[in-house]
Amino acid sequence: MDTGKLLTEKVADEIVRTIIGKELKAGDKLPNEFELAAKLGVGRSTVREAIKTLVSRNVVEIRRGAGTFVSDRSGVSEDPLGLQFLGDSARVANDLLELRFLIEPRLASLAAGSSTPEQIAEMMRLCDACERKMLDGEDFSEENTKFHVAVARASGNVVVPNLAAILCGPSSMMPGSPSEQTRQELVQTHREILSAIAARDGMAAYDAMLLHLAQCRRSVAEQSLK
Amino acid sequence: MDTGKLLTEKVADEIVRTIIGKELKAGDKLPNEFELAAKLGVGRSTVREAIKTLVSRNVVEIRRGAGTFVSDRSGVSEDPLGLQFLGDSARVANDLLELRFLIEPRLASLAAGSSTPEQIAEMMRLCDACERKMLDGEDFSEENTKFHVAVARASGNVVVPNLAAILCGPSSMMPGSPSEQTRQELVQTHREILSAIAARDGMAAYDAMLLHLAQCRRSVAEQSLK
Repeated sequence: MDTGKLLTEKVADEIVRTIIGKELKAGDKLPNEFELAAKLGVGRSTVREAIKTLVSRNVVEIRRGAGTFVSDRSGVSEDPLGLQFLGDSARVANDLLELRFLIEPRLASLAAGSSTPEQIAEMMRLCDACERKMLDGEDFSEENTKFHVAVARASGNVVVPNLAAILCGPSSMMPGSPSEQTRQELVQTHREILSAIAARDGMAAYDAMLLHLAQCRRSVAEQSLK
Repeated sequence: MDTGKLLTEKVADEIVRTIIGKELKAGDKLPNEFELAAKLGVGRSTVREAIKTLVSRNVVEIRRGAGTFVSDRSGVSEDPLGLQFLGDSARVANDLLELRFLIEPRLASLAAGSSTPEQIAEMMRLCDACERKMLDGEDFSEENTKFHVAVARASGNVVVPNLAAILCGPSSMMPGSPSEQTRQELVQTHREILSAIAARDGMAAYDAMLLHLAQCRRSVAEQSLK
């Protein structure tokens, strides 16, 4: 174990190693408190504290009466980049977009080369979900984030889906809702990205994503003026 | 407060809002347990639990006998992208590098346009520190990460320094040490990046960073073969 850390932190690290070592997946159950305490040679109260730490890091979740399970949040903590401490939300939204301009067109182009039929079906489902919410005049930001994460996943890069969840998450959006016209355009360019990926046309996917991001930037600018 | 969260989590969120509201910076002291408990209308034990949560998220740190202070880790948790759960370290290192190729040349070029004399001095100091460690045959990965974070900060994008700390952090490196020749080349291209930034030559900074990343990729490939 590392030195210089609190015992709770060390035990939390050991539990993480147990999860990785046993190749436990999201939804799998952890050994119970007794077993973990015996395995790690510490008291049950220390195990309980360590598990609380792992809950706050979205590594595990406690289901009352059922036990402790590996979380489907993949150990990605809320606000992992500490964006809430950066202040000025328009600045943060614009700087996140600047990063998305650097990354997402390339991801869309990679996705055109390597996405599976299942991944394309999933992107289609999310495109439809965005469109339905848009037609109903509802907020589609959650489905929007999921669509971008699905494109990132289809790129084949293992790191980027977790990153996309941050870059395209709530902090990348301004408070309030984009105009009706902007919402229609955003849904339309989602479709263009998806069509290009499904047609295995990497360059068209790259360009459609660029266009989509330009719309996002205009939307942020519009809402900053409100 | 949000519903559906444990009281501890809610109190942790309130403390975060207090930090942001009072514009407390890294190293600033938080109100003590009594004051926080009174302000938030909860017991001291709840405040203590909430503070533990914030310690594990690198938002605050406890200095024994002195109190609780805002951490200089900016609320960026350890392994915020859950990289340790992705398995295969060579794959993770390569996929992180792929992202760095998309982002860092542009950041270097922006830094050439907008870095302050203080930022250039800091990058110079970190370049020197890397070189000294290299000449002494020591590991310079920590100084290397700091150099890349300094370039990211000098780009003016507020989001990217926290991201660079992850992309260029320990997970982007393979276990073991690069060859002597690779180490010399890496230090040499750091100098080229810095010279181009100091000369306000954005294109040269872009190219020097590209070259540096190509060396990094070769280094990962070499070490994967070991």
